[in-house]
Amino acid sequence: MTTLLSPEELEARLRDVGTRRYHSLHPFHKLLHNGELSFAQVQAWALNRYYYQAMIPVKDSAILARMEEPELRRVWRQRIVDHDGDHEGEGGIARWLVLTDSLGLHRHYVTSLDGLLPATKFAVDAYVHFVREKSLLEAIASSLTEMFSPGIIGERVAGMLKNYDFVSRDTLAYFDKRLTQAPRDADFALDYVKQHARTPEQQEQVIRALEFKCNVLWVQLDALYFAYVDPKMAYPGAFVPKEG
Amino acid sequence: MTTLLSPEELEARLRDVGTRRYHSLHPFHKLLHNGELSFAQVQAWALNRYYYQAMIPVKDSAILARMEEPELRRVWRQRIVDHDGDHEGEGGIARWLVLTDSLGLHRHYVTSLDGLLPATKFAVDAYVHFVREKSLLEAIASSLTEMFSPGIIGERVAGMLKNYDFVSRDTLAYFDKRLTQAPRDADFALDYVKQHARTPEQQEQVIRALEFKCNVLWVQLDALYFAYVDPKMAYPGAFVPKEG
Repeated sequence: MTTLLSPEELEARLRDVGTRRYHSLHPFHKLLHNGELSFAQVQAWALNRYYYQAMIPVKDSAILARMEEPELRRVWRQRIVDHDGDHEGEGGIARWLVLTDSLGLHRHYVTSLDGLLPATKFAVDAYVHFVREKSLLEAIASSLTEMFSPGIIGERVAGMLKNYDFVSRDTLAYFDKRLTQAPRDADFALDYVKQHARTPEQQEQVIRALEFKCNVLWVQLDALYFAYVDPKMAYPGAFVPKEG
Repeated sequence: MTTLLSPEELEARLRDVGTRRYHSLHPFHKLLHNGELSFAQVQAWALNRYYYQAMIPVKDSAILARMEEPELRRVWRQRIVDHDGDHEGEGGIARWLVLTDSLGLHRHYVTSLDGLLPATKFAVDAYVHFVREKSLLEAIASSLTEMFSPGIIGERVAGMLKNYDFVSRDTLAYFDKRLTQAPRDADFALDYVKQHARTPEQQEQVIRALEFKCNVLWVQLDALYFAYVDPKMAYPGAFVPKEG
């Protein structure tokens, strides 16, 4: 890329990444939303995604630690509050554990990470390392998958409520909150990126950062599909579903 | 683990990790060694493993940078020499590129990493981050998969020469060198670990470090199997085999 894009052109390029690479396109999500997964496969999804949820505020703290301006930090710290809450039992991670509880997974087992697929750990950790090691601009750009999340959340909640009798609006409460949090966060990050990617090289970097983040999400679903759908090649030590 | 193991007991525990988790047990390797992969599937293996090879001296440099004693560094630096060689075209990485050349993969394509599976990148990068972030003892212990490599290399070279007319002893020369380098390196690392893991906690850490490294190798084969064997779910942008 050698020409400078206007902020609007850059936004269009970023949105295009989502239409090609966002994990809403992954076969595992189609199965999840269409009610084609078993209870045990949904357990495996919730168990593995717990690690992603748990590391989001670690990722955001790493970004916070790189921001030298109070006005930036004041905005970004809200993400950490959203995930950690103000008290025990509040916030996004706690809401995720309500879901894993409701799926019959022991809380200690979930938080121990004993049943986690190694590929989940590697993908999520890659995200944390990315925001520590790349430029602040790229770190912020990597959060931009949130631009696409209201669509997938709407589809997921409607599909899961319709198709699975083992979930309810209460146990999916995590996603309700994200419907307002994610667009607010995405708007801020998108404005930041459009303002601060001022050279063709920086614009290329932010597009790559968003592609990287799409990979982080996609690879987690590849690993779930591989271990629990087809060819069901389980990893030694990882969660083993007890079917029926 | 609450009791202190003798050095010999610790070694036995470490060898036991290999019998349960080393990637010689992975179905992808059985296919590779038994001649059951197509030319294009072998290409995908060599292409992805290039990234692992290329990052090994980065990993070893990170370990070197953490060693405060000249006598340790004098030994460890040989690993970097082995992979990088003394001149252009020498060393383990160059020998790996001889293999990818012989498989008809353009060198620029291989080294650009454009065709790499994201899961390969995440797994290999997890290894580099591990040796930077964990204790030096754990970093050294994570190299101990080399204890098991002569077995798999013997099996691989014999199997591939017998079953594939598109490989030769020359194009597999990388592995010949490793047959002498790996045991020398493993002996040193094993002695170090047996001497320096002096508490039950440290012994547990080195066993976990070796398990982690087995995961790094295993997940790379999971990703190859998923993308190129079954269910052949390719990643957008990754290498697409041109079958016969």
